[in-house]
Amino acid sequence: MQARKVRILGTGKYMPKRKITASDMDELLGMPAGWVLKKTDVALRHFVEDETASYMGAQAAQAALAAANLSFADIDCLVCASGSMEQPIPCTAVLIQKAMGEQESGVPAFDINSTCLSFVTALDVMSCLVDIGRYRRILIVSTEVASNALNWQDKESAALFGDGAAAVVIGRSEVGESSQVICASMKTYSHGAHLSEVRGGGTKYHPREYTPLTENEFLFKMDGSAIFKMASKLLPEFVADLLKQASCSIADISLVIPHQGSAMAMRLLQKKLGISDEQLIYITPDHGNTIAAAIPMGIHEAISQQRVNRGDRVLLLGTSAGLSLGGLVLEY
Amino acid sequence: MQARKVRILGTGKYMPKRKITASDMDELLGMPAGWVLKKTDVALRHFVEDETASYMGAQAAQAALAAANLSFADIDCLVCASGSMEQPIPCTAVLIQKAMGEQESGVPAFDINSTCLSFVTALDVMSCLVDIGRYRRILIVSTEVASNALNWQDKESAALFGDGAAAVVIGRSEVGESSQVICASMKTYSHGAHLSEVRGGGTKYHPREYTPLTENEFLFKMDGSAIFKMASKLLPEFVADLLKQASCSIADISLVIPHQGSAMAMRLLQKKLGISDEQLIYITPDHGNTIAAAIPMGIHEAISQQRVNRGDRVLLLGTSAGLSLGGLVLEY
Repeated sequence: MQARKVRILGTGKYMPKRKITASDMDELLGMPAGWVLKKTDVALRHFVEDETASYMGAQAAQAALAAANLSFADIDCLVCASGSMEQPIPCTAVLIQKAMGEQESGVPAFDINSTCLSFVTALDVMSCLVDIGRYRRILIVSTEVASNALNWQDKESAALFGDGAAAVVIGRSEVGESSQVICASMKTYSHGAHLSEVRGGGTKYHPREYTPLTENEFLFKMDGSAIFKMASKLLPEFVADLLKQASCSIADISLVIPHQGSAMAMRLLQKKLGISDEQLIYITPDHGNTIAAAIPMGIHEAISQQRVNRGDRVLLLGTSAGLSLGGLVLEY
Repeated sequence: MQARKVRILGTGKYMPKRKITASDMDELLGMPAGWVLKKTDVALRHFVEDETASYMGAQAAQAALAAANLSFADIDCLVCASGSMEQPIPCTAVLIQKAMGEQESGVPAFDINSTCLSFVTALDVMSCLVDIGRYRRILIVSTEVASNALNWQDKESAALFGDGAAAVVIGRSEVGESSQVICASMKTYSHGAHLSEVRGGGTKYHPREYTPLTENEFLFKMDGSAIFKMASKLLPEFVADLLKQASCSIADISLVIPHQGSAMAMRLLQKKLGISDEQLIYITPDHGNTIAAAIPMGIHEAISQQRVNRGDRVLLLGTSAGLSLGGLVLEY
């Protein structure tokens, strides 16, 4: 397919109030000083205090609108692209619309979910709808509360995650603007479906089945080394195919904004794909892994820190529970 | 925007093993004989026995592939469009891919959720991706287990719902085929966000907060009369706008396939919009309200019962928790 004439118009971010440093986390986990930082490279992650996912999403969305010099009236679709949901019914996008005070707007609101890749999937999908004229401007919001389903017995994964939200406004590139989504790809291999999961809380295991004995079923479980192994094997060919679609090599990519799965995953990416430190957005140390919010946070940081200019080629890349691989090449 | 050159290639349905008649339901609810049928018009709904959402979705998907004379290898995207999820992580589409035995396929799998309108939203969104060439053929699966979050104290809503799954394969219309998605519309008014909800089970109220005292927070709650009032007010103008976009009147629509919210909602639709019995697909009596699966089940029944022919105009229409309104006009 052809490139989509779509432009990132603005981005925003919200980090919750409660700051947890690596040494706070050492204490929470009952580990010796320095253990968390050494194991995860996460010096700081934020946890919600009284914030909800919809509140955080609304804050990030307002910031993205302000950055784009737009108001909510300029938006004609609101997509929540998160791996966790605030409540089972209704979808989180509805609750974000309400938290923004736009409950009478009529702006369509729905969720797209592919766990950690939700933002990449939503950008891939919704950029097609902008290109084809179904919507003009879309607000994509990723907002995650990881902290309340962490398994504190599984110290290495508990130390990795953080809460927070990020939002991106996309719209059609105007005449004379070269911004575009060049290509995108997603692959799902469900033989990895149970490598990272929260089994309880949906229709299979209703919350009524929660007891101290079944507790672990309702918490996040991750087989990090199996995921690492599967991703190492699949990623190089996946990225080679994607770059071939984009008719470029990794050297032509100004910036790689990966899902911040873990410090180890970052090193794997750099080594396997030949990504330099200058090309890499690495926000794990002061955010942790914020599920689907990690990539739009990375976009926000890249823009805020002026590490990306109009005309630059950017690669979004990640893996998610599934196991899925997702990537998207855009010209900012 | 222009119509999308997209065609429904096949549909499938799976109803779970446990059949609950109206008189079974009278007994379950402790009500006098005849109460359920009179209140809801649901003579039969199915509840899962040992089936999971992904199992049912896989069965419906296989049936849809068979009806389309296709195999899974012909599909390049799998979307789960449901209002309930099997487990919080990963998304249900991944679990359906696995339940289909296609775990090595690499076919991208993700969820789209707008509660009862999930299928209409997914068809609206994904038909754009087929039209633009992002994917060639897409399997959209709605699979719902309503039964395990029903509030048996709220007898009228408990009597209404059923479980089940339906699937639809879409692909590009070939040269000489006039099948198309003519237009679609969605509106969300989140001042109705709390009129139908399941509050607990997501990140706001984790399953650990489930106790006999908080039980109701984890069950489905619906203010039927407030929804009815809101929908009555909004639907006529919503449908008038949609038909205007489609350049036709309700008389030009061969078949209306509505969300099977309730018998009362069906009567409202017919009266407010001037829909005849011949134009209406009404499967509430032998399915109940199966959340997002109701509309694709309606499409499946329309095709199976030969109530729709190629070239006919069909209107999909419904409301969902949000409160959202959604509609789509297609030429079958």
